[in-house]
Amino acid sequence: MNKIITIGREFGSGGRELGRRLAEELGFEYYDKEIVTEISKHTSLSEEYVKHVVENTPHSLFPITVGHSFTYMDDYTIKRIQSVYAAKDEIMKELAEKSNCVIVGRCADYILKDYNPYKIFVYADMQSKVKRCSERMAPDEKLTDKQLVKYIKEIDKRRARYYEFYTDNKWGDKRNYDLCINTTDTVIKEIVPVIAKMFR
Amino acid sequence: MNKIITIGREFGSGGRELGRRLAEELGFEYYDKEIVTEISKHTSLSEEYVKHVVENTPHSLFPITVGHSFTYMDDYTIKRIQSVYAAKDEIMKELAEKSNCVIVGRCADYILKDYNPYKIFVYADMQSKVKRCSERMAPDEKLTDKQLVKYIKEIDKRRARYYEFYTDNKWGDKRNYDLCINTTDTVIKEIVPVIAKMFR
Repeated sequence: MNKIITIGREFGSGGRELGRRLAEELGFEYYDKEIVTEISKHTSLSEEYVKHVVENTPHSLFPITVGHSFTYMDDYTIKRIQSVYAAKDEIMKELAEKSNCVIVGRCADYILKDYNPYKIFVYADMQSKVKRCSERMAPDEKLTDKQLVKYIKEIDKRRARYYEFYTDNKWGDKRNYDLCINTTDTVIKEIVPVIAKMFR
Repeated sequence: MNKIITIGREFGSGGRELGRRLAEELGFEYYDKEIVTEISKHTSLSEEYVKHVVENTPHSLFPITVGHSFTYMDDYTIKRIQSVYAAKDEIMKELAEKSNCVIVGRCADYILKDYNPYKIFVYADMQSKVKRCSERMAPDEKLTDKQLVKYIKEIDKRRARYYEFYTDNKWGDKRNYDLCINTTDTVIKEIVPVIAKMFR
């Protein structure tokens, strides 16, 4: 069986960087946005549309209440959304069967549970996440720290909601992971070689 | 500044073994029950008595309600208990100043926070903890799995209460630690060399 590493992460914790570097260090495949591209290919739907579906919970996609009336979706729209979900699970399993890999986000830990993945969760203090986000922003796109805190909380709330909808588990609860890494005051590049040793 | 590693752990998770092996691997001092011995020497109180005080929260040591009346402690008893607490903090700080070390339990992560310890928390699934405890018991002392579950829960409840009383933090909450390690289905001996690499 291939070695599968899944990474859940708080926004701004450097979890994505950790995943990418870990894959590089180990010579594993790395999947993150690549999954959206694959679904797009399989379903012939645009990447933008797939991304929208994949990153939202069904109740935010399906019938929307407007005042006291409902906006119903036609059957075609519902089937199209369902095709994206089905493709997502299928593609992730295909990737897991193809080779050793690191997969970031997208409930991979849950979807691939039969492949016995090593499940990592990456988190950090708010201050550290704000700093990390801020450093990566282009000077002309900078948000204030206060705006960033709000943004980070919003993204993580969405991630938690998404994860909990699909898995029935609590996002970020250490019981669901093999290793939880606090990246506060940590240089990701420096810890990756150590973590990589676990998989050799 | 010396390198200080503190280990919080669920009962049966193998956290103590992990700490001991980590200290061996790194050539660090290892403190666990040794702290009780040191307090005993400093205060001239018996190890048994020190252990009793150190492992209980003050409200379980101080005035006890019996029916509607109270049993008051004399001033000497209160001062004696206080001397143990004072000695505990002092001794832990002395040990941290003396050399690199691994300290298991006893709120070391909180007491030594000014020494910037690397804080590890070790946990596991109940089934795995029961198995680990069961394997270590002498054949004639064996508890049933059901009894073990009760025992493990009781010990951890006590640890949580103790930790939360002294630190105002939540025991086992990943935010209070640098690394949380799930030892379910893990051979402690095998992961120690990897963790040790983080401190070299």
